[in-house]
Amino acid sequence: MSDPNDLASYVDQAWQVLGRGVADAKSPARHPVFATVSPDGRPEARTVVLRGASRSTATLEVHTDTTSAKTTSLSATPLCELHVWEQRRRLQLRLGCRVEAGTGPETAGRWARVPPASRISYGTQPAPGTPSDHEFAYEKPADPDRFAVLICHLQRLDLVELGEKHRRALFLIEDGFKGVWLAP
Amino acid sequence: MSDPNDLASYVDQAWQVLGRGVADAKSPARHPVFATVSPDGRPEARTVVLRGASRSTATLEVHTDTTSAKTTSLSATPLCELHVWEQRRRLQLRLGCRVEAGTGPETAGRWARVPPASRISYGTQPAPGTPSDHEFAYEKPADPDRFAVLICHLQRLDLVELGEKHRRALFLIEDGFKGVWLAP
Repeated sequence: MSDPNDLASYVDQAWQVLGRGVADAKSPARHPVFATVSPDGRPEARTVVLRGASRSTATLEVHTDTTSAKTTSLSATPLCELHVWEQRRRLQLRLGCRVEAGTGPETAGRWARVPPASRISYGTQPAPGTPSDHEFAYEKPADPDRFAVLICHLQRLDLVELGEKHRRALFLIEDGFKGVWLAP
Repeated sequence: MSDPNDLASYVDQAWQVLGRGVADAKSPARHPVFATVSPDGRPEARTVVLRGASRSTATLEVHTDTTSAKTTSLSATPLCELHVWEQRRRLQLRLGCRVEAGTGPETAGRWARVPPASRISYGTQPAPGTPSDHEFAYEKPADPDRFAVLICHLQRLDLVELGEKHRRALFLIEDGFKGVWLAP
């Protein structure tokens, strides 16, 4: 039997990586991949910016435009997997989440804290993904009505470290993220 | 109207990034994220190693263990999205593909070219993802019968560059990857 404290320290490391992602724009967890399922059942993956990580509520926070493809996908399947790869330690975090999207007045407090330079990510005209004759045929006004806050409620965390020996563990919400080792 | 050659040079850049990923272990495209849909409809994402990229056949190549979760997911939904993020240029590649898995005798030629140190990725006992009492309670024999070659047939390539001005284009197989600009 392994020391159960090893599992505890392993999941501690994951939350440290996530916390650094929120605090440090140069950290690997700043730009996780956000995977969803499209309305017609295709896998989708794109880079996002990690805006919040709370261990006490087991939530991650990401912002998006209400007209983005990921908003449409989440309406059909409100699930995501966030993926972080820390090359230095060869550590992979896979965070399976249920996603709750907030828009409108309930997001006013968060909008107030979005720096002006970032606000132009919400409101692109025409909407993101609209075909166009020219590469720069769009405007980026800041529109609080197009701002969506995605609260990602962590359900399962799969951690893999590809060190000299590989190790892998799975932490599930239903056992309080106590964790179990898996064959890597 | 933009110069259509700009679209051509944009997709050229994407294939250069992919080619470097195959040739150079330190390149960002060496370790794409491979997104799939689980049999119960959850989004999944994990790091893989890019083993091949052929522009002439519009295919990417990845290897896996026949007992991995991604093999199971691909049996249910034979689609993936490969995702590459090149931080230096802030360039994102999203490669939506149909996946064809090869195993057994048809992979013998490729197996012969897998370096011995990499062969232990195929054959872990117990199978990857099996719960275990101990972090290192597994063996890694090399087993050619557990080696699967995933040929990813590119269907759509979504390119985004987050430079001073953002630009985004979509290249689809049905128009010969000629491409169209999209609002970013």
